[in-house]
Amino acid sequence: MAFLALGTVALDNVKTPSGFKKNMLGGSAAHFSMSARLFDDVHLVGIVGKDFPKMHLDFLKRKGVNVSSVTIADGKTFRWTGEYKPEDLNSAITHETELGVLLDYTPVITDQQKKLDYLFLANLAPTVQERLLSLMPKPEFVGLDTMNLWINTALRDLRRLMKKVDMMVLNDAEARMLTGERNAVAAARAIRAMGPRLVVIKKGEHGVYVYGGNFQFAYPAYPVLKVVDPTGAGDTFAGGLFGYIAKCRKADQKTLRKAVVYGTVLASFNVEGFGMGKTAPLSMKDVEKRLKEYQAFCAF
Amino acid sequence: MAFLALGTVALDNVKTPSGFKKNMLGGSAAHFSMSARLFDDVHLVGIVGKDFPKMHLDFLKRKGVNVSSVTIADGKTFRWTGEYKPEDLNSAITHETELGVLLDYTPVITDQQKKLDYLFLANLAPTVQERLLSLMPKPEFVGLDTMNLWINTALRDLRRLMKKVDMMVLNDAEARMLTGERNAVAAARAIRAMGPRLVVIKKGEHGVYVYGGNFQFAYPAYPVLKVVDPTGAGDTFAGGLFGYIAKCRKADQKTLRKAVVYGTVLASFNVEGFGMGKTAPLSMKDVEKRLKEYQAFCAF
Repeated sequence: MAFLALGTVALDNVKTPSGFKKNMLGGSAAHFSMSARLFDDVHLVGIVGKDFPKMHLDFLKRKGVNVSSVTIADGKTFRWTGEYKPEDLNSAITHETELGVLLDYTPVITDQQKKLDYLFLANLAPTVQERLLSLMPKPEFVGLDTMNLWINTALRDLRRLMKKVDMMVLNDAEARMLTGERNAVAAARAIRAMGPRLVVIKKGEHGVYVYGGNFQFAYPAYPVLKVVDPTGAGDTFAGGLFGYIAKCRKADQKTLRKAVVYGTVLASFNVEGFGMGKTAPLSMKDVEKRLKEYQAFCAF
Repeated sequence: MAFLALGTVALDNVKTPSGFKKNMLGGSAAHFSMSARLFDDVHLVGIVGKDFPKMHLDFLKRKGVNVSSVTIADGKTFRWTGEYKPEDLNSAITHETELGVLLDYTPVITDQQKKLDYLFLANLAPTVQERLLSLMPKPEFVGLDTMNLWINTALRDLRRLMKKVDMMVLNDAEARMLTGERNAVAAARAIRAMGPRLVVIKKGEHGVYVYGGNFQFAYPAYPVLKVVDPTGAGDTFAGGLFGYIAKCRKADQKTLRKAVVYGTVLASFNVEGFGMGKTAPLSMKDVEKRLKEYQAFCAF
């Protein structure tokens, strides 16, 4: 069954110790979809400008991503220029952000899409995320991601939205910022008290911690010897996680554990190459192969 | 079978957000032994001053730790006064270090002890660690821990010693300092190239990463909602790890994985109380109970 994913579609310029790449296809919804498409039929909801290269849209389509609700607006596509320094490949330094068409974006979806009942709100302004949610009469399961910018500038909107979602996915720095709790275990409890019944805290190279009220679990990251470009790793993780949940059409503990493992495996591919260099060519066979390695890695 | 553990025995004054405790029994070998005694017969090798409270020695004996090679010397016991701030419970701020009798310490052991073949060199000056090692004619398995101080001030001694040990246990900041590699996976490979065939990188609340040449694994930390005092967590971890290896008298991959799990479980108890408040009362039954919880926590 199909599901919706709202978020940014961007053109990224990224510098890392491994090199510098310009005009890559990026953005939260694009990375999310490149991962989620392996599990289920993902409908991307977002906006680009008239300058957006047709080859990127064709590429998404070829990968099985439904782009019928990607608005092509007058104006420029959202652009991000950032850098990762060798001493901290976990933290991006933003050099430039050009919001372009994102500034006036109101999500539009088809009547058919309004009936879909699994929805992931990838990183975007909380008011825009909430707008899309308001178009859905009765979604069964809603996931939410965010970023430090919205915690700093749109906390009230974000807190209101958090009450309406089932699962929140965020990184450890964001969890700390949102709750004041440095300890991920304590932060997850505080976030759950704000609304979402499932809280997934991404810790990059340190793996992931999940809290669901009457259960909790943590898994390490898949070991990556050389991180080439971490851009989109969190979105790729969320894509594997949510894609598997949407495919199973349930998010009980057992499904969630497996979903987090898929997210972990997908994210490990993402950081091994620039942009979608390593995730775009993947088949489920590649994913299952690494999942087996990961199982051996974690076993005791 | 018995085994040796060399390291410090200290009097600790510790301030954390949970309180302030004075004159607690501490030190690398003391924390290590309080954990390792659950698995095997541990002989502590260290030094204290004449001011060392007899009750602490009696306490160690009562817990089954052999203290026959704890030298009681003229002078003052090693004292450490430190603090952990709420914003970073992983990093101790040292307010005062009084080395006392540690300054002129030369380890002395009995002829019987020289024949023991499992030896753990807990944190202490590398030259002192090496001296003890030189007293053992043919140890079968040697573990080594260290700290940032020795990497900064005695690197040549440490590097020489590293060539003579089987397993090195160190935290992620030390691994980075020693190798220049920020990535734990890469750092472990660089450390293995320096000597020890097994490399165990402790990452505190983020768990542990292990590299053994033809295998690697990682486990998350046991989730602790409130860290009361992290002092000695790394030593407690090493005690569980090495105690189990010494008991099994082998360090193949399967044994090592189980040993790391025991270390992880023991360390989780340590941080839940001041000093040895939570580790000293433990029986193996308590440990096995938490191990079961940890297994459920990590499963997928």
